[in-house]
Amino acid sequence: MIVDCDPGHDDALALLLAVGDPRLRVLGVTTVAGNQTLDKTTRNALRMLALAGVDGVPVAAGCDRPLVGELTVAENIHGASGLDGPDLDLPVAEVADVHAVELMRRLIVESAEPVTLVALGPLTNVALLLRRHPEVAPRVRRVVFMGGSTERGNTTPYGEFNIVTDPEAADIVLRSGLPITMIGLNVTHQALATEQIIAEFRGLGTRLGTVCAELMTFFASAYLREFGLPHPPVHDPIAVAAVIDASVVRTVAAPVAVELTGTYTRGATVVDLHHRTGAAPNVDVAVGLDVDAFWDLLMTAVRRLGAPA
Amino acid sequence: MIVDCDPGHDDALALLLAVGDPRLRVLGVTTVAGNQTLDKTTRNALRMLALAGVDGVPVAAGCDRPLVGELTVAENIHGASGLDGPDLDLPVAEVADVHAVELMRRLIVESAEPVTLVALGPLTNVALLLRRHPEVAPRVRRVVFMGGSTERGNTTPYGEFNIVTDPEAADIVLRSGLPITMIGLNVTHQALATEQIIAEFRGLGTRLGTVCAELMTFFASAYLREFGLPHPPVHDPIAVAAVIDASVVRTVAAPVAVELTGTYTRGATVVDLHHRTGAAPNVDVAVGLDVDAFWDLLMTAVRRLGAPA
Amino acid sequence: MIVDCDPGHDDALALLLAVGDPRLRVLGVTTVAGNQTLDKTTRNALRMLALAGVDGVPVAAGCDRPLVGELTVAENIHGASGLDGPDLDLPVAEVADVHAVELMRRLIVESAEPVTLVALGPLTNVALLLRRHPEVAPRVRRVVFMGGSTERGNTTPYGEFNIVTDPEAADIVLRSGLPITMIGLNVTHQALATEQIIAEFRGLGTRLGTVCAELMTFFASAYLREFGLPHPPVHDPIAVAAVIDASVVRTVAAPVAVELTGTYTRGATVVDLHHRTGAAPNVDVAVGLDVDAFWDLLMTAVRRLGAPA
Amino acid sequence: MIVDCDPGHDDALALLLAVGDPRLRVLGVTTVAGNQTLDKTTRNALRMLALAGVDGVPVAAGCDRPLVGELTVAENIHGASGLDGPDLDLPVAEVADVHAVELMRRLIVESAEPVTLVALGPLTNVALLLRRHPEVAPRVRRVVFMGGSTERGNTTPYGEFNIVTDPEAADIVLRSGLPITMIGLNVTHQALATEQIIAEFRGLGTRLGTVCAELMTFFASAYLREFGLPHPPVHDPIAVAAVIDASVVRTVAAPVAVELTGTYTRGATVVDLHHRTGAAPNVDVAVGLDVDAFWDLLMTAVRRLGAPA
Repeated sequence: MIVDCDPGHDDALALLLAVGDPRLRVLGVTTVAGNQTLDKTTRNALRMLALAGVDGVPVAAGCDRPLVGELTVAENIHGASGLDGPDLDLPVAEVADVHAVELMRRLIVESAEPVTLVALGPLTNVALLLRRHPEVAPRVRRVVFMGGSTERGNTTPYGEFNIVTDPEAADIVLRSGLPITMIGLNVTHQALATEQIIAEFRGLGTRLGTVCAELMTFFASAYLREFGLPHPPVHDPIAVAAVIDASVVRTVAAPVAVELTGTYTRGATVVDLHHRTGAAPNVDVAVGLDVDAFWDLLMTAVRRLGAPA
Repeated sequence: MIVDCDPGHDDALALLLAVGDPRLRVLGVTTVAGNQTLDKTTRNALRMLALAGVDGVPVAAGCDRPLVGELTVAENIHGASGLDGPDLDLPVAEVADVHAVELMRRLIVESAEPVTLVALGPLTNVALLLRRHPEVAPRVRRVVFMGGSTERGNTTPYGEFNIVTDPEAADIVLRSGLPITMIGLNVTHQALATEQIIAEFRGLGTRLGTVCAELMTFFASAYLREFGLPHPPVHDPIAVAAVIDASVVRTVAAPVAVELTGTYTRGATVVDLHHRTGAAPNVDVAVGLDVDAFWDLLMTAVRRLGAPA
Repeated sequence: MIVDCDPGHDDALALLLAVGDPRLRVLGVTTVAGNQTLDKTTRNALRMLALAGVDGVPVAAGCDRPLVGELTVAENIHGASGLDGPDLDLPVAEVADVHAVELMRRLIVESAEPVTLVALGPLTNVALLLRRHPEVAPRVRRVVFMGGSTERGNTTPYGEFNIVTDPEAADIVLRSGLPITMIGLNVTHQALATEQIIAEFRGLGTRLGTVCAELMTFFASAYLREFGLPHPPVHDPIAVAAVIDASVVRTVAAPVAVELTGTYTRGATVVDLHHRTGAAPNVDVAVGLDVDAFWDLLMTAVRRLGAPA
Repeated sequence: MIVDCDPGHDDALALLLAVGDPRLRVLGVTTVAGNQTLDKTTRNALRMLALAGVDGVPVAAGCDRPLVGELTVAENIHGASGLDGPDLDLPVAEVADVHAVELMRRLIVESAEPVTLVALGPLTNVALLLRRHPEVAPRVRRVVFMGGSTERGNTTPYGEFNIVTDPEAADIVLRSGLPITMIGLNVTHQALATEQIIAEFRGLGTRLGTVCAELMTFFASAYLREFGLPHPPVHDPIAVAAVIDASVVRTVAAPVAVELTGTYTRGATVVDLHHRTGAAPNVDVAVGLDVDAFWDLLMTAVRRLGAPA
């Protein structure tokens, strides 16, 4: 598995789940501009891996802006660092000396078996991989991305941040013909970091647990201020959880298009749940979440990382 | 109150509620192409008034197509007649010899007090009224329309039928500066014609009750086939109910725009519930429904009409 | 013939041609917001008829804004009055007490033979007529409009002012199925008010000639400032000339669509001269102009009006 | 100089000009899907270099489809091979074993001085280079592309083939901040391959001259059939000529945007020649051509190649 991300608070937890669950093998981590600028999301990825005590997983920085249009970061949600809240001052590994797209290509080509791409930010890197190295497509097992929604959005009324940030990249990925799983807001808003969840993180008694608690505390304050939500949705780890155990989410195959030309709806994922458009299904769309199973997976991974033998 | 409609099964019940509740005075009924062609929706309006034993309410036919683009009717939902199900062969009154827009204008101008427009179909007639007779706007108390959604649509993933049928008309109305209440799918999908509701109609023991039951039975079969919904939402009467008793719906003031340029989202009502666009609120958007109070109002009206002194 | 206009310098000359040529009978003049606000364009129409010594031609004011969107006037081209340049302080007739759309309807219905509509401003009134009174369409002989372009525009790189001001109205008219002639910038930019033309107006020795010279002098200064053109194109009279004598313009039948969704091209008339889209021709598009014949018609009409027996 | 192309009849002549003029040094040739599929345009580039007796110039194949959307080739203009007309059966060099984008990158990085990119097809490769390797941008002296128009298009009424084929790529390049020269249809339609030009090619008495004559003869028949033009415009070599001698074209600095959302105008280059949009100029737009100087350059290069010492 390769994790492409833009940490970001929920990306941070997703990374912990990815490296903390024994069933997954993370071949590499790639970063993209999104929640914050590329340099910040890259540093944040390195920090989370260092915190998790993981080394040997290469981290490569990718695109610093969307394919088309300008970058708008989510500083209102993730703070100036992209990972505001805890003190994350610790020594980190070096970023790899290759572009994210090249690292992805190498890891896919060198892997003995097909590779799953888990994309947790704007799909810029993945789209660029598909256009620049179309020959790797047959060796991609599946793209599991956090993004979009079957219902309302968050950045705009119908647009979710990752897709709104780079709609053309999403369009490229969704039309690629690859097996795709979409983890949208419609399910991620079921995984809320309640006070109980935060207490559970803190109760782990490890530095990692405390960091998770502090991340979620900051995240909660941002969601309360921006959306009036008392408990923030923990989006990205669900995409990783769905790779670990497909039964964590319930999916339906449906046609999904990305709105590219709307005045108010650019970047909306238009999910034809009732098959009214006549288009062929191109995405397995998550429509249900086993909330308890999800938190079990995440909590177990963080506990495990915090106390390595 | 003037009712502009395109009956249509739920429009039919809305007409009954409008003429059956003693608190409302229906000055006139105007018709528009939408659920079916104009001749059919007009005939259906006349039939429902005849069935209800109402005379003296003028009925005028309006626009036979949207402002821009072609008409697509909802024959899959409402059948070939627009009101399939019951036998509705009965003598009806004559349609008024004026256009719907002219009837609206006269009724508004002649009314001693401001008039509420209840719009249950595409907003073509209302938009045309505002452009052709802008002088009446100050005498319109409020436009209460059934249409749009804060969540998903029905005709397209994010588009509701009335708005998708004539997006430009909706845009004109929503930008008019008039007080507007939007009754969207997000609330109408809470008012479901269950078997119990249908039995209650039938149990009224009147011809009108039986017709309502038969209408809802047909409607249920269409929704089951088209959307997999066992119980059909009874959209339009909620707009009338909201005029009778504002407490039937809970509303929030929000900016609402109509998507005119989207490839997949044309006709979506983009409701900025979290005030993220910075636009000024222009619509009171229904976000909650007192389901029991609604059914009480409707059932009482149909009961009352079925047994006039 | 009915002239719908928004004077405007070139509209002013078009009115003179319309009432000054003995082969035309102007049944009425209607006004629309465009070059200036409705009150100004209406006053300007009345002034030009008064100057021409014409009475008995009813003038009715129509729409004060486009169907969709807000009005933007062309004050940079036509000045604060919409007809800057000459002193036009003179007694004028009363405006008719009906809306332009109603006057059009009456004149068409009462005419013994089909009526030609000459539209020299945004097509708002004409579109509203077609939607509000579709029954008159069979009695419209032809719509001849000044607007659009087969080449570049003037308000935007590909958009001409009249169409950009109300693209939806233009769409309605162009899709109406009526016989339509388009007089676009591609031909009107061949009819330039050179110093020689202005001298010829002045040389007529009549007040009307002097006014025409002063109008064109102001118009020339605006075009020089805004477009760097030393001689302004005299757009609108060509549409009238084409009604007087069809041989003044050379036309080809072509499919014409109005761009409604473009970010940079909204309001462009997309003329498929090479039949590459497969659409059916819906417009006779002027592609050539007999410049000398045009000026002859206009100069003769102004001379004739200035010296009535 | 690097030539990115999709030969294509006029690309073929552009390649001859590029390798035949002593003032230019062609570092490499890259190919893209456009006039024909990638395999065909690549083979055609190899053929033209072989015909020209050029070896040592690496040829690399790039993108086989646009960034967004599907590829539509111009088989109606360029035939099944992309270079129909002459017999081009001759031994060719091997295509380089790197992607066009990688070849571009290497050549730019390894060049002692900044490199001019001449793009004669859809801008897919150039856009991908800028997104994948943004670090090379400072070493690109200028992008000179054939594409777009200040006036009408060829593929659609306002859209030129190269830009319509990949509008997003064009958008990326035009917004890149690089110095850019646009050679659009407005100038290329002044360089017509008349019978005299064709006779001149044939009169060179070399195989290359004959091939050029045969290419232009086929090209003429296609333009006559598709556009009714007796003499085909020779688009692409003008971009090369503008690099050899900037005085061959007259340019103006202007804001140029690519229409991405238009229903009928997608891919139009919207050139604000009169500075009405307030946008900053981003392109040097060719608005005039020294036709004789252009043909002199081209004919001289072909003559020179046909008779190498």
